[in-house]
Amino acid sequence: MRSRGLLAGAVLLFAATATQAQAPATSPAWLAPYRDATARLIAAATADDFAWQRLAELTDTFGSRFSGSENLTRAIAWSVESMKRDGLENVHTEPVLVPHWVRGAESAEIVSPPRRHLAVLGLGGSVPTPPAGIESDVVVVGSFEELRSRAGEVKGRIVLLNAPFVNYPDTVSYRNSGARAAAAYGATAVLVRSIGPMGMQTLHTGSVDYAVDVMPIPAAAITVEDANRIARLTARGQKVRVRLSLESRTLPDAESANVVGEIVGRERPDEVVLLGGHLDSWDVGTGASDDAVGSIITWEALRLMKKLGLRPRRTVRVVLWTNEENGVRGGAAYAAMHASEAASHVFALEADSGVFSPSTLGFSGTMAARLVMRDIVSVLAPVGITEVVSGGGGADIGPIAQMGGTPTMAYIGDPIKFFPIHHTAADTVDRIPPGDVSRAAAAIAAISYVVAEMPTALQK
Amino acid sequence: MRSRGLLAGAVLLFAATATQAQAPATSPAWLAPYRDATARLIAAATADDFAWQRLAELTDTFGSRFSGSENLTRAIAWSVESMKRDGLENVHTEPVLVPHWVRGAESAEIVSPPRRHLAVLGLGGSVPTPPAGIESDVVVVGSFEELRSRAGEVKGRIVLLNAPFVNYPDTVSYRNSGARAAAAYGATAVLVRSIGPMGMQTLHTGSVDYAVDVMPIPAAAITVEDANRIARLTARGQKVRVRLSLESRTLPDAESANVVGEIVGRERPDEVVLLGGHLDSWDVGTGASDDAVGSIITWEALRLMKKLGLRPRRTVRVVLWTNEENGVRGGAAYAAMHASEAASHVFALEADSGVFSPSTLGFSGTMAARLVMRDIVSVLAPVGITEVVSGGGGADIGPIAQMGGTPTMAYIGDPIKFFPIHHTAADTVDRIPPGDVSRAAAAIAAISYVVAEMPTALQK
Repeated sequence: MRSRGLLAGAVLLFAATATQAQAPATSPAWLAPYRDATARLIAAATADDFAWQRLAELTDTFGSRFSGSENLTRAIAWSVESMKRDGLENVHTEPVLVPHWVRGAESAEIVSPPRRHLAVLGLGGSVPTPPAGIESDVVVVGSFEELRSRAGEVKGRIVLLNAPFVNYPDTVSYRNSGARAAAAYGATAVLVRSIGPMGMQTLHTGSVDYAVDVMPIPAAAITVEDANRIARLTARGQKVRVRLSLESRTLPDAESANVVGEIVGRERPDEVVLLGGHLDSWDVGTGASDDAVGSIITWEALRLMKKLGLRPRRTVRVVLWTNEENGVRGGAAYAAMHASEAASHVFALEADSGVFSPSTLGFSGTMAARLVMRDIVSVLAPVGITEVVSGGGGADIGPIAQMGGTPTMAYIGDPIKFFPIHHTAADTVDRIPPGDVSRAAAAIAAISYVVAEMPTALQK
Repeated sequence: MRSRGLLAGAVLLFAATATQAQAPATSPAWLAPYRDATARLIAAATADDFAWQRLAELTDTFGSRFSGSENLTRAIAWSVESMKRDGLENVHTEPVLVPHWVRGAESAEIVSPPRRHLAVLGLGGSVPTPPAGIESDVVVVGSFEELRSRAGEVKGRIVLLNAPFVNYPDTVSYRNSGARAAAAYGATAVLVRSIGPMGMQTLHTGSVDYAVDVMPIPAAAITVEDANRIARLTARGQKVRVRLSLESRTLPDAESANVVGEIVGRERPDEVVLLGGHLDSWDVGTGASDDAVGSIITWEALRLMKKLGLRPRRTVRVVLWTNEENGVRGGAAYAAMHASEAASHVFALEADSGVFSPSTLGFSGTMAARLVMRDIVSVLAPVGITEVVSGGGGADIGPIAQMGGTPTMAYIGDPIKFFPIHHTAADTVDRIPPGDVSRAAAAIAAISYVVAEMPTALQK
């Protein structure tokens, strides 16, 4: 009841103006009963590099964990065994059928003399080229607007979508939708400038989305450097003729699974605080930041509670989803399987944006819930997180949260560090500081503990 | 004569303590006759991005320019034509037979379950593996010392030389000499941690040197991340079994050439101020910093003199050498062909370390010559260069300079920016700021003008 009273006051004070719910200067009094537990969780999480070591073991041992791969299956089995060894409860898998796309050999080159190699990485789900490849002059466009204005030049050509990276949400549409947009004008294939800032000849993959009424055409990423090079060559008046070969295949759906573990609630076991990341990754790199680390830090929240003997009022459940990257079948299957308990999901947190500091928390929910969350976040001062920004969820928690009207949160690593390695071979454990992993685990453990423990659930 | 007098004074003042010849606070009076010309050269070089645009044209159009490749042959022809269009004099090629090593298909993976991909890049000159590849457990060593101490474990194994990057000169011996050191103990192949700081799964190639009395074994670079990963796996007690396949071939020597252009000296045409970079590159990336930019900026010195109507007392000669990377046949051929005029080479400057700011100049020569050079460098204040460090030459100018007892200089870009992209696919024009190229050209033009113009040649 105490929290309700404080909440009402907070609403009066902040409702009119708050777009970012900044933490109060001092931690609110209603949090006093939780302060000891959250302090212990934070201390335990940050006392060592256990979480980073587990992240390294996962990514070193299983490498990339693409849907349909043996390595994902092995990583799922390892996760189940490791969760059991941690003492988590009700550890089990929930079966999911996932798409099984296989990259195959890929190559590209500028064939207009002199021949020049192009690094290339097919977009996930791309149809293959014919066995001999596709060869044509390249039409370079810098935007969808330019594509439309030059539609007459596109027929029978390879289109290079050379849009500068502004930020991920504003640029990723060229990867998702570029193929169908160009195909609508008769293009035979698209090359997409990698969705990220210039790296080190770094290729970024990711899904391509086709339209039911437009012929699917092969789609592949090239590097920012090669995209700029082709743009410079054409700007000098040279024809750039490219040959592209993609030998991708789509096999029958494969068996996979979500991994589930719990700390069963002490008083209200049917009410669920849902945490998770996705265990699958793209087929390049080792998916350390996307999203092995999200899996590890949410799992850590439960391991730490178990280790410290903390059993909150409600059930805390971690789910390591499968197939977030190229289908979100894991999130969909979870919602379908747990539909009857959707309304009992009181909170859901997804970690799928890395843990690079400075990290932030994003929250989607009612203003009342948000103000409570603003209070809760005040306990995270020791790990450097002091505010909750507006809007936060995740692809995997989306379906169940939508069913249940559940407030959702995202743990969001610094995008300046995340997007250069996103969906690339460079997404490895090496560049993730152990302290960032520990602090993320600490934050999620503390938040989920309070949300699972406080007498009145977050308002929906 | 005036310079002689100043020189003597400078020697008295600085000879006892100077290890870095810092520029005097004010430009010495003896430079007055050259100040107008050097100021004009600097102004012309930095007025636009001509040099960067030429660098982009060279690297965009011809890509990598590896010895024996058609692209190098085309780049040589383009350089000759472009030098002629610039109005350089005596533009010609001098034939050089160069090694012709061809990389072929390459692959590596960890085969101990679960299989994991390893990015791999053969070292230049490596012998191939048998067609089926080489498969064995990996022995990880962090140093030559550790290799020696664990010599008994190496026979029949693949050795991973996992030495941390300290700096290039101190670390490159693992790439040059690792194969013969491991082969001496019976290793079947070596993997070398890429010689550079951690990049973005970045592979660094470069030459491997075999010994006449030791069996040559296949040698390839892996990324820093993969090297660390294998080291972590073995540290956890796991066997790491790797399969390596390299299909390299060594073909008969190929015809290539050095490209030569001149501004013929007004009074002493037989005395030569030699400038140059190497036009060849490794077969990955486009060799923009290594060493298209060195070729362009030294060539620019002559183009700018021509453009401004400056014809110094001595001949200024630019040579774009071939085959620096895997043989230095161009530098050797130049020395052989010009042996009779070696003593007339009064100064030689090589630019083969990029142009990233802050750049420095390195000089090798007598103390007398160095103090004169210290004075000359005072004219470079507008481009931010104020000192000459001890020691500077280059692989290509080395042979002729040794014959002629010629003072040598190196233009040295910031190694912090150069070595992350050195011998990698990421060595492209994109990351070289146009201003860095202009300032480098300005510096080289000004220095070479003064050295070619001053009445008394640098003391040998």
